[in-house]
Amino acid sequence: MKFLAPLAAAATIVTGAANAQHASFESAVPALSHYGSTVVQGDLWKRPGLSARDRSIVTVATLIAREQTALMPEELARALDNGVKPSELSGIVTHLAFYAGWGNAAAAADALAPIYETRGIPAESLPGAEVEQLPLNQEAEDAREAGVQANHAETSIGVVDYTRDVLFRDLWLRSDLAARDRSLVTVTALVAVGQAEQVPFHLGRAMDNGLTRDEASEALTQLAFYAGWPRVFSAMPVFRSVFDARPTSE
Amino acid sequence: MKFLAPLAAAATIVTGAANAQHASFESAVPALSHYGSTVVQGDLWKRPGLSARDRSIVTVATLIAREQTALMPEELARALDNGVKPSELSGIVTHLAFYAGWGNAAAAADALAPIYETRGIPAESLPGAEVEQLPLNQEAEDAREAGVQANHAETSIGVVDYTRDVLFRDLWLRSDLAARDRSLVTVTALVAVGQAEQVPFHLGRAMDNGLTRDEASEALTQLAFYAGWPRVFSAMPVFRSVFDARPTSE
Amino acid sequence: MKFLAPLAAAATIVTGAANAQHASFESAVPALSHYGSTVVQGDLWKRPGLSARDRSIVTVATLIAREQTALMPEELARALDNGVKPSELSGIVTHLAFYAGWGNAAAAADALAPIYETRGIPAESLPGAEVEQLPLNQEAEDAREAGVQANHAETSIGVVDYTRDVLFRDLWLRSDLAARDRSLVTVTALVAVGQAEQVPFHLGRAMDNGLTRDEASEALTQLAFYAGWPRVFSAMPVFRSVFDARPTSE
Repeated sequence: MKFLAPLAAAATIVTGAANAQHASFESAVPALSHYGSTVVQGDLWKRPGLSARDRSIVTVATLIAREQTALMPEELARALDNGVKPSELSGIVTHLAFYAGWGNAAAAADALAPIYETRGIPAESLPGAEVEQLPLNQEAEDAREAGVQANHAETSIGVVDYTRDVLFRDLWLRSDLAARDRSLVTVTALVAVGQAEQVPFHLGRAMDNGLTRDEASEALTQLAFYAGWPRVFSAMPVFRSVFDARPTSE
Repeated sequence: MKFLAPLAAAATIVTGAANAQHASFESAVPALSHYGSTVVQGDLWKRPGLSARDRSIVTVATLIAREQTALMPEELARALDNGVKPSELSGIVTHLAFYAGWGNAAAAADALAPIYETRGIPAESLPGAEVEQLPLNQEAEDAREAGVQANHAETSIGVVDYTRDVLFRDLWLRSDLAARDRSLVTVTALVAVGQAEQVPFHLGRAMDNGLTRDEASEALTQLAFYAGWPRVFSAMPVFRSVFDARPTSE
Repeated sequence: MKFLAPLAAAATIVTGAANAQHASFESAVPALSHYGSTVVQGDLWKRPGLSARDRSIVTVATLIAREQTALMPEELARALDNGVKPSELSGIVTHLAFYAGWGNAAAAADALAPIYETRGIPAESLPGAEVEQLPLNQEAEDAREAGVQANHAETSIGVVDYTRDVLFRDLWLRSDLAARDRSLVTVTALVAVGQAEQVPFHLGRAMDNGLTRDEASEALTQLAFYAGWPRVFSAMPVFRSVFDARPTSE
């Protein structure tokens, strides 16, 4: 096992939540304790190209999009330890209520509430209905709306209306999550549930808003472990087509 | 937030389960309490075009198909409050044992059992092995069976045999769920897990059995919130192709 | 219900875990108790073409790949009863940590730990980091690596490197799971989550390593019940194309 020797030393440096092994691995799947401390905690999370904070965003967005409750307690806590602010973490759950499903948000909120309670983070400190709004790019929004109207208004005017009023002129303008982070969460959720066909629009937005190509590449690496290899292999050609279509200076 | 002011009054009218907020939203994701009381409970569930009963069918079918246990207690209870009969609710679980998976049905039954116990609904009142059978459309069934035989008999005769004997000449004929509702449950489950490619056959059946185009459009709107926007955007072109292929008088 | 009469006798022969009904079916969905004892336990699990051991491998791989925790306790226990060794069962969880996601493995380990404790299976008896390695087919691995390098190195070198170092030159060589079983687990996971497009490579490997066409056909039958009919109907054309491309003597 290539990663066992060289990383044993590194693994001992890591402390706290970032090094926590899922408790039942030790007794039921000891091999995963070893892969965990060497490859995952000792190597993946320390790779350059994507910050630990952003790796936590990718990881918790994956867990929420898939309603994977078993890892939520430790990974939501790690996200806070890695510098994701409570307002951002709650903002991720709010965003995924719409981009994964209301039930996914409910499961995430159930896991998040006791963590906030333990850490003394009161509801009043978290973003509510009214937050400062980011500026709307009216031209881009008009183009998006025109396309959706043309393609979908006759199929479901309800979806078209809510997409405009609740998503693109409300949710996406909320300042509790930076535009770049919101797009990273969206791309992650799409890869995690196997909907790579919708990645181009959102990955393009993410890169327009500052996500670098190296960061997107490393988000795929993080996703390989947390969403599983097959989801990532289906997404890689789509990422490549987005990369190839952008200016080479990036 | 556009929906805050105009719907605040409407929200106060709603009472009981239909207005219940998922408990942990208030402390962990306050923004979702607001979206919940305004956009979801105060607007979505009251839209014309699809009855509250049918919205509950779409919602619980989504939760079961995705094994989203966090919302099951409140949404299964709301389904009963909205007029879904216990025999129909158990019929939905039975149907999804085959159209989502045996494990999905197990999770749903685990959530349903305590609700029935609280409400005093005994097992003897629920449909068992023997229920009145709906008439078989022999011509349509022969055509379906011939197609499946031709395409799949050499790949898996077991799947072909069970499809005929257990699904189309048994499950689909059970009278515990009306044909139109059974098809709505099936279409919902397909959209919820991202298998829009199988929607045409079942959406056509649903519309043959009385689901209107307006109801199908509103089912998509309900699905946007409970299955997440991406699943619905992948399904809309498929719905449109089914709509376009039907007589314009519908 | 065709299966009620002829299988009633057979059902009485089955004892123990193999006949256990999911407890809440009786009170909440009695129809599923009947389908369970007749069609599923009384017929599916006894079909020729795939051993009960292999049916358990398909079933638990489905549950883990979908994080379906409700059925895990009974099906993990049944797998042990059906002859899946603890080292193999933990090996399946290890494999799916990479092929379904780290969170899926965590949920499976949580369900597996109390079963091992009850049965007195200590962690020291389970495979850890170091297990005997199966021989590497250097030629096939070089071809795989060259293809992945050419297609994906510019998109995510991290994914490419881990795929080589952790998956194909480590995980796939672990002797805690036979190559044929490891491929069966992988194919099952792909079908269970709706990623049939990646089945050909892994089904070909499975058949190269001894999985017969009849066994693959029956794996689809088992998957129909545990992953749901739609997943299997999307997978059948892919299985057929793999079958058709192989020598007719198989």
